[in-house]
Amino acid sequence: MPHSDTLELSLELLKQPSVTPSDFDCQTIMANRLKNIGFNVESMRFADVDNLWARRGKESPVFCFAGHTDVVPTGASDAWHSAPFDPQIREGKLYGRGSADMKTALAAMVVATERFVEKYPNHRGSIAYLITSDEEGPAINGTVKVIETLEARQEKIDWCLVGEPSSTNKLGDIIKNGRRGSLNGILTVQGKQGHVAYPHLAKNPIHLASTAIDDLCKEVWDHGNEYFPATSFQISNIQAGTGATNVIPDILTVTFNFRFSTEVTVEQLKSRVKAILDQYDLNYNITWNLSGLPFLTPVGDLVEAAQQAIVQVTGSETTLSTSGGTSDGRFIAPTGAQVIELGVLNATIHQINEHVNVDDLEPLAKIYEQTLVNLLA
Amino acid sequence: MPHSDTLELSLELLKQPSVTPSDFDCQTIMANRLKNIGFNVESMRFADVDNLWARRGKESPVFCFAGHTDVVPTGASDAWHSAPFDPQIREGKLYGRGSADMKTALAAMVVATERFVEKYPNHRGSIAYLITSDEEGPAINGTVKVIETLEARQEKIDWCLVGEPSSTNKLGDIIKNGRRGSLNGILTVQGKQGHVAYPHLAKNPIHLASTAIDDLCKEVWDHGNEYFPATSFQISNIQAGTGATNVIPDILTVTFNFRFSTEVTVEQLKSRVKAILDQYDLNYNITWNLSGLPFLTPVGDLVEAAQQAIVQVTGSETTLSTSGGTSDGRFIAPTGAQVIELGVLNATIHQINEHVNVDDLEPLAKIYEQTLVNLLA
Repeated sequence: MPHSDTLELSLELLKQPSVTPSDFDCQTIMANRLKNIGFNVESMRFADVDNLWARRGKESPVFCFAGHTDVVPTGASDAWHSAPFDPQIREGKLYGRGSADMKTALAAMVVATERFVEKYPNHRGSIAYLITSDEEGPAINGTVKVIETLEARQEKIDWCLVGEPSSTNKLGDIIKNGRRGSLNGILTVQGKQGHVAYPHLAKNPIHLASTAIDDLCKEVWDHGNEYFPATSFQISNIQAGTGATNVIPDILTVTFNFRFSTEVTVEQLKSRVKAILDQYDLNYNITWNLSGLPFLTPVGDLVEAAQQAIVQVTGSETTLSTSGGTSDGRFIAPTGAQVIELGVLNATIHQINEHVNVDDLEPLAKIYEQTLVNLLA
Repeated sequence: MPHSDTLELSLELLKQPSVTPSDFDCQTIMANRLKNIGFNVESMRFADVDNLWARRGKESPVFCFAGHTDVVPTGASDAWHSAPFDPQIREGKLYGRGSADMKTALAAMVVATERFVEKYPNHRGSIAYLITSDEEGPAINGTVKVIETLEARQEKIDWCLVGEPSSTNKLGDIIKNGRRGSLNGILTVQGKQGHVAYPHLAKNPIHLASTAIDDLCKEVWDHGNEYFPATSFQISNIQAGTGATNVIPDILTVTFNFRFSTEVTVEQLKSRVKAILDQYDLNYNITWNLSGLPFLTPVGDLVEAAQQAIVQVTGSETTLSTSGGTSDGRFIAPTGAQVIELGVLNATIHQINEHVNVDDLEPLAKIYEQTLVNLLA
């Protein structure tokens, strides 16, 4: 195997057992490399979460690499073919927890930046890094807090490339240029317990709510738009009953989630759910939890720079997508930054024997470097 | 308080801690009294259940007292104002587990029979007792097995008075002359687990089944008839979901119960449920459990004898009813016997501090005795 700077740094990062919220030594390793090429480095620790903010240059526009050093738990270590924090290469694949999500991307960012800075020491604008160690956890003391700190001192990101594993079938086939919003609700419908033999003395909350629940399942919330699929409503949990077959339950609990496009607002979703429930004579309550607003980066400088970089490195076109789960991009986009996600294949993330193609590492570093060239050279 | 034979025997039975399936010594106490007045007594033990079959006379018609010596668990003994198996009288009420359901009725039967036999030693027909100790439990080795034994030797009951607590506001105000059937079903709807962010890759069984469940809740199964209220359908339990808010569940489980009239059959109910579900593209399964067929004893010899007895003893009219839960009458009626339930007030059955009015005990014995007079004197 030819020498690869990206693989070498990846191995170093993958050896750190940085399960959320631990960073272990990842940010120190990255910070030292960045200091060497003229970055001003700040550690921002909030509660038990290490965060890194690093910047090279004082001018606008600011291009920021974003990502996380924490990884999800390994599950049963025995089930791994090699220990999750002892990275191993077998048949062209690099195995280890965090190999896909997202330590190889962190390595590629650093190597790409080193090469870019060597060639363009006087690049225009600034290059920055926003790295956290709680993306996989509660996401309270990570990117959110760093962004608050930056906003307080009016430090602004113009373009942000999050190194999340966006690729699906081959490296660079998908760029995420936005994410749907995520809104959770817990609906409780109050009835009155009783014996099934005396239904007139009880109120069955399942029966009272059955039409409303059916209405919610059938509702078309929007039709999506050019960038977003239609808003989806999914009931994840439903529960009522004591377990006994002869008791009418006193309460029904329904947990649901919206993944929503930019065609509806949170307030519209809440009021439409309420309007459906209010058609029926229900004694109900809903607890709402907004997990993230939708965001979108339309085609523009950042998207075009990344798409061109992918063509320049791989020869292939890329597709824009807003599907899938949430990421820390949801906290950065509201500042007005353009935000995209671009990284390795996501097929094995969060799984036992997580891995990435070794042959994708240098091309990813080249794509990142070329994106810097396209924007800041 | 004047001396009461019924109260005295009630106290003796109530001291026996005969929680299902235990009879403790109840049936022995009853059998000894019945032997003394010429009954032929048979113990029929099946598995862990004691049953008593006793008969005085060899001729038809056969009038049978039926009931159970077992009681439901006491719950927290501390919550009782007096120990559940230490019967106590306070302010005219007799407290103890089984006082209402149904040891005072057993005592009243025995006392009534003794008095009747003394006056009419050569009564026509036969008097019988069918007593079990698993009415409150699985009901497998009790009345069902005794009836099987009787049918095998072609021994037939013509009139059966079950001493279940049928009265609602005052002694004898209600006679149950039938019971609705009870049919349980467990419906499972198979979906496909997945992430809420990717609903197109999953199949949500809650959404798939929501319209069918709403249809089942809205269906009018029949309108009842002269004797029966309309058939009722109640979902007692519904469950789907892993607890996680971002996972679409793979399976939905719905437990339901029919209390049904004689206007529909079990097969009709099953096929109508199936027809509703088959309107939708569901991968489902139903496990059925028939808990009891409906039975009905129209106005005739037995009902009239009991109604007259109540007027003769209390001066009040009585109402016929088929509402409420199941009883062992469901196993006796299919033999062709006329079956009614007539006993004390049911307001406190299965509750902490179960009790009965002391002043109702002798009148109940008199009603039972007068019923015997009306039929067999």
